[in-house]
Amino acid sequence: MLTNPRSDRVKAVRALSRRSARSRTGLFLAEGPQAVREAVRCRPELVRDVFVTAEAAARHRPIVEVAAAAGLAVSEVTPEVLAAMCDTESPQGLAAVCRPVDVPLQRAVAALPPAGLVCVLTHVRDPGNAGTVIRGADAAGADLVVVSDASVDVHSPKVVRSTAGSLFHVPVVVGVPVAAILAALRDAGVALLAADGAGPTLLPEVDLRRAHAWVMGNEAWGLLPEVRDACDEVVRVPIYGRAESLNLAMAATLCLYASAEARRST
Amino acid sequence: MLTNPRSDRVKAVRALSRRSARSRTGLFLAEGPQAVREAVRCRPELVRDVFVTAEAAARHRPIVEVAAAAGLAVSEVTPEVLAAMCDTESPQGLAAVCRPVDVPLQRAVAALPPAGLVCVLTHVRDPGNAGTVIRGADAAGADLVVVSDASVDVHSPKVVRSTAGSLFHVPVVVGVPVAAILAALRDAGVALLAADGAGPTLLPEVDLRRAHAWVMGNEAWGLLPEVRDACDEVVRVPIYGRAESLNLAMAATLCLYASAEARRST
Repeated sequence: MLTNPRSDRVKAVRALSRRSARSRTGLFLAEGPQAVREAVRCRPELVRDVFVTAEAAARHRPIVEVAAAAGLAVSEVTPEVLAAMCDTESPQGLAAVCRPVDVPLQRAVAALPPAGLVCVLTHVRDPGNAGTVIRGADAAGADLVVVSDASVDVHSPKVVRSTAGSLFHVPVVVGVPVAAILAALRDAGVALLAADGAGPTLLPEVDLRRAHAWVMGNEAWGLLPEVRDACDEVVRVPIYGRAESLNLAMAATLCLYASAEARRST
Repeated sequence: MLTNPRSDRVKAVRALSRRSARSRTGLFLAEGPQAVREAVRCRPELVRDVFVTAEAAARHRPIVEVAAAAGLAVSEVTPEVLAAMCDTESPQGLAAVCRPVDVPLQRAVAALPPAGLVCVLTHVRDPGNAGTVIRGADAAGADLVVVSDASVDVHSPKVVRSTAGSLFHVPVVVGVPVAAILAALRDAGVALLAADGAGPTLLPEVDLRRAHAWVMGNEAWGLLPEVRDACDEVVRVPIYGRAESLNLAMAATLCLYASAEARRST
């Protein structure tokens, strides 16, 4: 049992809340029962260590059992040690050190189904928005999420938390420049749909039964003109009231759900 | 020009970030160009004081002109004074002290159009979620937002900020117990649709062309059983992938947009 919150091992885990430590070690931390459960259940090959308090081990027995059955190292820790490891204020007794979830772009694009649904996040900086979009993409049954290189790190604690486990469900590509992302998708026959509040085409009017990617911009300033221009269509979510705009996560969710419903009715 | 960040007047404005001061004074603070612009443009009768830095007055001249034309008191302040007044880290040079936006329940319900669209938030505690739902309701063209008594204060700085100006667009009712809200809507012939991830009816199957209210629960634990039972239908947003659920703001936006599209196609 780990009892010393000031030990080097605990400090090394805590350091994973910093991007530099994640880059150096090639590891990140999933915090809380939901994230740890989805990690051990869906991506056990990525999990290196599971840390659990006695109380959480009793409360979340199925998670610990799945981890043990997958041959994962499960270490009991005191609540103080878990708190010292985690970025979250209340990690609820569970955390897991994992290897990154991301997959190479070419392989991910090659694995897309015929009418694949992709979500591309370009220059997204806000962790909550990025995580919520990944969660929405998962809920909408998207086949792939691609996060461009000039974006928030999807393995940061806040992004991981706001995906609510979805980071372990959907294939995610990271670290590729936008131009290369769009080129790879275009080469694979995926229609590129820019989501933009000033777009000429209304969401309900777009053909969403073909393979397509929603290309989303920065939460404050939207898409770069060159990214928008590189897309096949520029689509806006209609505003029925007096709001100026929707936030990124809301717009993405509405676009992805419109796609999901179109695919379902095909 | 106000230059002393430690003056009583500045402290009195700053105090409005606390609920107790808002209750005592019957005032709240709208921070930043977007909120102040929508306040002076859409609800000038609620605005008591506008504070602006010299730089912001130059950059956002139309806002200051609209305020002046409405006969509002506009005071120039130093950046230090504005920072001392505001909860936001970067209020961007503008803030306005306003009277509460909320309207009485009975009057708001009586003013609903024949196929009115209402969003009811019950026991919502997270300011970001509450504000985002109000913004989504505005975007979807909802006629009314009702926030139950055991919820976050819609006049708190974080809620005001996340509404992105929509707080000044949509009629909002606050402070009424859930049972009284549902009774008033039911008496007015408004169908009550509980949004619940475990609901038996799927969103695309609901009749959204009648007057109806989306009843949303707490962001963590959802709707109280007695609230769900008091509704006419319990509706779930379909999950097409492996996500366990959507967050409150996403679910509400999808429900409200489904309503908006049904109303548009009538």
